[in-house]
Amino acid sequence: MDRRSLVKHVGMAGVLAAGMAPAVRAQELMQWRLVTSFPKSLDAIHGAAEKFGQMLKLMSNGQIEVIVQPAGEAMPAFGVMEGVQSGAAEMALTAPYYFTDKDPCFAFGCAVPFGLTARQMDAWMEYGNGRKLMDDFYGQYNIKSLSAGNTGTQMGGWYRKEIKAVADLKGLRMRVGGGLLVEALQKLGVQAYNMPISEAYQALEKGRLDVVEFVGPYDDQKLGFGKIAPYYYYPGWWEGGAELAYFINAKVFAALTPELRAMVEGAAALAAKDLTAKYLALNPAALKKLLSERVQLRAFPRELMDAGFKVVMATMAEHEAKSAMFKKIHRSLRGFQHDQLLWDRFSEFRYVSYMSAVRL
Amino acid sequence: MDRRSLVKHVGMAGVLAAGMAPAVRAQELMQWRLVTSFPKSLDAIHGAAEKFGQMLKLMSNGQIEVIVQPAGEAMPAFGVMEGVQSGAAEMALTAPYYFTDKDPCFAFGCAVPFGLTARQMDAWMEYGNGRKLMDDFYGQYNIKSLSAGNTGTQMGGWYRKEIKAVADLKGLRMRVGGGLLVEALQKLGVQAYNMPISEAYQALEKGRLDVVEFVGPYDDQKLGFGKIAPYYYYPGWWEGGAELAYFINAKVFAALTPELRAMVEGAAALAAKDLTAKYLALNPAALKKLLSERVQLRAFPRELMDAGFKVVMATMAEHEAKSAMFKKIHRSLRGFQHDQLLWDRFSEFRYVSYMSAVRL
Repeated sequence: MDRRSLVKHVGMAGVLAAGMAPAVRAQELMQWRLVTSFPKSLDAIHGAAEKFGQMLKLMSNGQIEVIVQPAGEAMPAFGVMEGVQSGAAEMALTAPYYFTDKDPCFAFGCAVPFGLTARQMDAWMEYGNGRKLMDDFYGQYNIKSLSAGNTGTQMGGWYRKEIKAVADLKGLRMRVGGGLLVEALQKLGVQAYNMPISEAYQALEKGRLDVVEFVGPYDDQKLGFGKIAPYYYYPGWWEGGAELAYFINAKVFAALTPELRAMVEGAAALAAKDLTAKYLALNPAALKKLLSERVQLRAFPRELMDAGFKVVMATMAEHEAKSAMFKKIHRSLRGFQHDQLLWDRFSEFRYVSYMSAVRL
Repeated sequence: MDRRSLVKHVGMAGVLAAGMAPAVRAQELMQWRLVTSFPKSLDAIHGAAEKFGQMLKLMSNGQIEVIVQPAGEAMPAFGVMEGVQSGAAEMALTAPYYFTDKDPCFAFGCAVPFGLTARQMDAWMEYGNGRKLMDDFYGQYNIKSLSAGNTGTQMGGWYRKEIKAVADLKGLRMRVGGGLLVEALQKLGVQAYNMPISEAYQALEKGRLDVVEFVGPYDDQKLGFGKIAPYYYYPGWWEGGAELAYFINAKVFAALTPELRAMVEGAAALAAKDLTAKYLALNPAALKKLLSERVQLRAFPRELMDAGFKVVMATMAEHEAKSAMFKKIHRSLRGFQHDQLLWDRFSEFRYVSYMSAVRL
């Protein structure tokens, strides 16, 4: 078996774990497995992973080839973090809050309820100490993370029936993305589940779920939830801006030459910028399409938002009491957010308030 | 003179123009001049250019070395576009609307009054036909452009006196960035000038200007305008999100190998994402510092915003009548913006409205 096919079979991380190749030599050919937590039909997310792979292959003149595999092909949607940690895959594209059952700190790499918007997330990560704090945290899992782009503020999900008051949430069986939201919603009487999106449609159709929340019009329209649960609520107060992340096996990343590491970062930045732009650009047309399909748009009642805010902050306080690292990251994020909300009053929020009021 | 020092002396574009090197060979060493339209003291913008250069050098294993030169060192602030066009510099980092005297379409590469926010700009460029339209336009100037990041919504400038009504603008001598704004403000009786920022402080100090507008707290605080003109207005309705751009000599870019082109794009994406994040992250602290220096924050009166909107739309209509290309790009941008404002009502704007209302 030659070196390249060895790498193909066990993955670079496996080679490193076995102690066969302590450092990557220039021009050594590599094949990386990039596993995602999503079905292939979600072309915004999958397109980003494919774009990352194409750009990295191009920059490295073929030295790194990236094989993108959707959820369920090589490993299950929620198995990708451990896959990268162990070296079974070199990389994953995922929503880090899928792994809050391992540690609630994973949520900070993606979104916490009533958290940051897309631009604020980038700003906190790169200039608000977020990346440093998350690198320390992810390091425990042998993971190096890079931004993979942001969905922007999400919708609040698909409901069979209208929600006119907080009490209407009681007893609802609801699929949500993130673990901290599961805990917060339970305090409002919701039976919330953290479940891969590929399983949610069937569960909704078979009557095992009353509510499914996923992302926003562009993805949701394709997945067809509105046919069963026609009330589409906004805003998704648990995902003001959900960040997707590349998880890279930290040993694999560290073993790269400096130029290959820079290429991985450059390809990730390109693909991330592209993903964020794509979601924002394509949501309006999908929203219009949904409205033509008789979907009913509804705003969450203010008292429900307030009740949500209260149980979310209580959930965060519980985790702060249990984990010093959680407290440290959460305080960093909220302090940053507080200052951002101040600045926003004089800048983009003020500007958009005016633009929303005039007839363009 | 060996090949490398030849490239050093006349620049790669010069070499190509002279017909000496029709294609760039792998491993050929290059030294690129990256000229900016800004003084070195603006470390957000300059930091981005430096970061671009460092990442490109790293990715290319030293094959391309980038020498960053601030305004006035190799060429004046507003001379960089022609510098790149002619090949005197391989690249520039600039605000494209500085060149609206050549053609008003340059504004679309940066910001038009009452235009797109930072995220909307990325979305329009990459998925709303913006990049394609701008590439067609820039092609006339032998320029390939890449996003260099966004300042976010800017402030509305520094005023010696309070502006309580539209009539208070009459006769004011005002430094602004973009050419289309100059024309629009003239309709309100303002003596508006498009002038490099390095000249503006002195003009304000010597009494030759009444108002200077530049970017936002992070840059403005360092430049010290508040010491002379203490009324700091918001929001900057002419710059909802001002995009900075890399201009690259199109022949130089086309002559690169595919892998070097990908590296240039990757390094630009990294530096752009970084610049946008940096401005957003650092503005709040600078704003607080300004407030401690007794700067007076003031909102533009609504009637002034409305008067501004009217003269801006009149200015745009005049240019539409004169230029088919202007009309085509403008209609594309406004159609995109219209849909974005619709989607925003259900997503980020709605979300931030709530976050601004609760006490964090």
